[in-house]
Amino acid sequence: MTLRMSAPRPISFSAFGRRVAPTAIARLMSAALENPRLLSLAVGFTDNATLPVEPFRAAVEALTRRPGAPEYLQYGTNPGRPLLRERIAARISRAEGWPEGRVAADQILVGNGSQQILHLAAEVLCDPGDIILLDRPSYFVFLELLRGLGIEARTLPVDAAGRLDFAALEVAIGGWRTSGELARIRGVYFVSYFSNPSGRTLGADEKRGLARVLAAHGLVVPVIEDAAYREMGFAGPSAVPSVLALEEWVAFPRLYAGTLTKPFATGLKIGYGCCTDETWRAKMLHAKAGQDFGSANFNQSVLEEVLGNGAFDAHLGRIRAGYATKMQVLHEALLAGGLAGAGWRWQRPEGGLYLWLTAPAELDLGGDGAFFRACVETGVLYVPGELCYGDAPERNCARLSFGVLAEADLREAARRFCAVAQQQRG
Amino acid sequence: MTLRMSAPRPISFSAFGRRVAPTAIARLMSAALENPRLLSLAVGFTDNATLPVEPFRAAVEALTRRPGAPEYLQYGTNPGRPLLRERIAARISRAEGWPEGRVAADQILVGNGSQQILHLAAEVLCDPGDIILLDRPSYFVFLELLRGLGIEARTLPVDAAGRLDFAALEVAIGGWRTSGELARIRGVYFVSYFSNPSGRTLGADEKRGLARVLAAHGLVVPVIEDAAYREMGFAGPSAVPSVLALEEWVAFPRLYAGTLTKPFATGLKIGYGCCTDETWRAKMLHAKAGQDFGSANFNQSVLEEVLGNGAFDAHLGRIRAGYATKMQVLHEALLAGGLAGAGWRWQRPEGGLYLWLTAPAELDLGGDGAFFRACVETGVLYVPGELCYGDAPERNCARLSFGVLAEADLREAARRFCAVAQQQRG
Repeated sequence: MTLRMSAPRPISFSAFGRRVAPTAIARLMSAALENPRLLSLAVGFTDNATLPVEPFRAAVEALTRRPGAPEYLQYGTNPGRPLLRERIAARISRAEGWPEGRVAADQILVGNGSQQILHLAAEVLCDPGDIILLDRPSYFVFLELLRGLGIEARTLPVDAAGRLDFAALEVAIGGWRTSGELARIRGVYFVSYFSNPSGRTLGADEKRGLARVLAAHGLVVPVIEDAAYREMGFAGPSAVPSVLALEEWVAFPRLYAGTLTKPFATGLKIGYGCCTDETWRAKMLHAKAGQDFGSANFNQSVLEEVLGNGAFDAHLGRIRAGYATKMQVLHEALLAGGLAGAGWRWQRPEGGLYLWLTAPAELDLGGDGAFFRACVETGVLYVPGELCYGDAPERNCARLSFGVLAEADLREAARRFCAVAQQQRG
Repeated sequence: MTLRMSAPRPISFSAFGRRVAPTAIARLMSAALENPRLLSLAVGFTDNATLPVEPFRAAVEALTRRPGAPEYLQYGTNPGRPLLRERIAARISRAEGWPEGRVAADQILVGNGSQQILHLAAEVLCDPGDIILLDRPSYFVFLELLRGLGIEARTLPVDAAGRLDFAALEVAIGGWRTSGELARIRGVYFVSYFSNPSGRTLGADEKRGLARVLAAHGLVVPVIEDAAYREMGFAGPSAVPSVLALEEWVAFPRLYAGTLTKPFATGLKIGYGCCTDETWRAKMLHAKAGQDFGSANFNQSVLEEVLGNGAFDAHLGRIRAGYATKMQVLHEALLAGGLAGAGWRWQRPEGGLYLWLTAPAELDLGGDGAFFRACVETGVLYVPGELCYGDAPERNCARLSFGVLAEADLREAARRFCAVAQQQRG
């Protein structure tokens, strides 16, 4: 006998409760379960083979052998450990080429991965029906969390090369003004470095131009720069200035979000935000206090430790080379599979975990289409690009991750993908 | 030069963003900062001296020495580790005196402390203006999270001994029917074992009676039983059946929430819910997916390990005795300070971390009153009881925690508190 489920009595859920839905990844995963020998180019996990077991063990040793109270096993504070926030602030300063003290620990808040920071930022800014502007393609998890909150997305137009198209943006803004949508725009979001999903890095000229156009139309709204992959450049962290550093953005309330665990150990799940607006940061922290009153103190202690003793950067050095190699393996396997000859296009990313493919326009790579089904049957999974658009989705794109699979599996997964591409071209 | 804050440009926040406010504890802490030699009987932390450094280190050793991929440092899944959920399910079954398989892993969801579970439960159930019924006094963090979500609270009447008063509840329900509030009631919440803040354990008869009265009035709404302190009984876990086990509650959708880290290492912050309604659980998980897509996998791995190897229970055995002693120290120090003679009343709790004081009715222990200020000046902090009421707050109550302070400090804190009580009686 098992614990009886309640009698099927319909619960009256909140508007939020009625809105939230399974994530795309959850749906993809259930597709994946149908084929146990499936190789996943979909999941954005990092490489198990390069997880930092030794530095982690050493950090725990150092913590547990330290004299004094084992406060790392005790509750912490809601904004995050002060020393960790100091180290994060110094790290951001270094990334911008500033002296270490320019960013203050008081501008930092620590979260359960950068995802929690993004969620807090959005929920204190937007009511259902409000609008966030974002890049195209954009991070589909962010799009999903917006949907859960009832927030609408509008995308910033791009040209054929994927660069922000300001002439088109002027036209779009004109349209939003006419439609009344302009007044509902509450913020701007973009993934600026080695983007998930596109692999692109926004140029400083693009960021500057965007601020100018928005300001010219009175859209001086909060901006969220998602810098999750900035440190994962194959040649080192990207030196392109963030919105924290660009003069054109000074008037905008800015939140710069990053993660400490994507480049180290995702199982520890610690992210951060650096916010230039005191009220916005305070409101995110008030919201966080209701949700968990601070991220796990132990995890923060470990990150504090490895940021302080150099292990974090040493690890980053090792994985950069590893991901560069794996990207190259995937790239060459796609070439070898004849994808370029069949009219597919992609840029080799210079960092991050993702390679973004554009198929010939007539191909539909959507999650409920024949191509996707054929891939699952053939034993390879990808993220349909259509999931990465706030509006007007492109259906001939795909995100391939080279993060998880070992080199041989990457080659095999690419071979299967290319086989389907050959088969489906007509 | 420091990173420039944004020009003071008022942001247009969401209704939620406008509502969220600093927590009571944050306000108390800022009061505390005024006096660095202050002893805190307010904070609900556990005892640093008994944190499980050795079992924790051993668990990390075991994990890091295990052959195979170090998946504990990798992302996990949104609902939580399957083996951990199995172990939680088995633990709940044992607490109810059932065979191990009666609760299924699929009924469990894992969160960032039980607080996240409570937050998810409330936000998928209630829109702003909806009502939750709850115990009096109740957990003030839950009250605050309700306030952040715009949810109203109504308290379940109690008699002079603090027991649920069903005659009064009938009258209250009649009133809610007349006022139209009955239709806005979306759930019931109570802290049932060694309660935070009252130290009370709800009797099985009280739980049964509550279900009967609610059902008689058609209030078969979701119930949240907060069992955070169930395992922290001084003589072992409480054997009083939960709503999962009581026949009277079978028709109600039920969520039983608990924590694995309050009784072990709060710095790991892992809680859980056991839910009898599949849709409710699914919606909480969809919401969680948007907020963090799963709690830190490493922390779950450690708990999985110590639940499996006996270290968790061995630790519980040690701390039970420790907290029993500390409770007794506080109790005797309050007696020695003349509090009973001055008309104050309290029950010695049989578990948990809190002792609930009731002062003579004319005394105001509120956070903005003279008594509280005198305590801060004298160097002792407590939680004003008024924060623990969903409505009609009592102002002559206080929550004292015996969790954090060492015995000598507990005695000194009680001495200071009693000195203020003597001074303030008139």
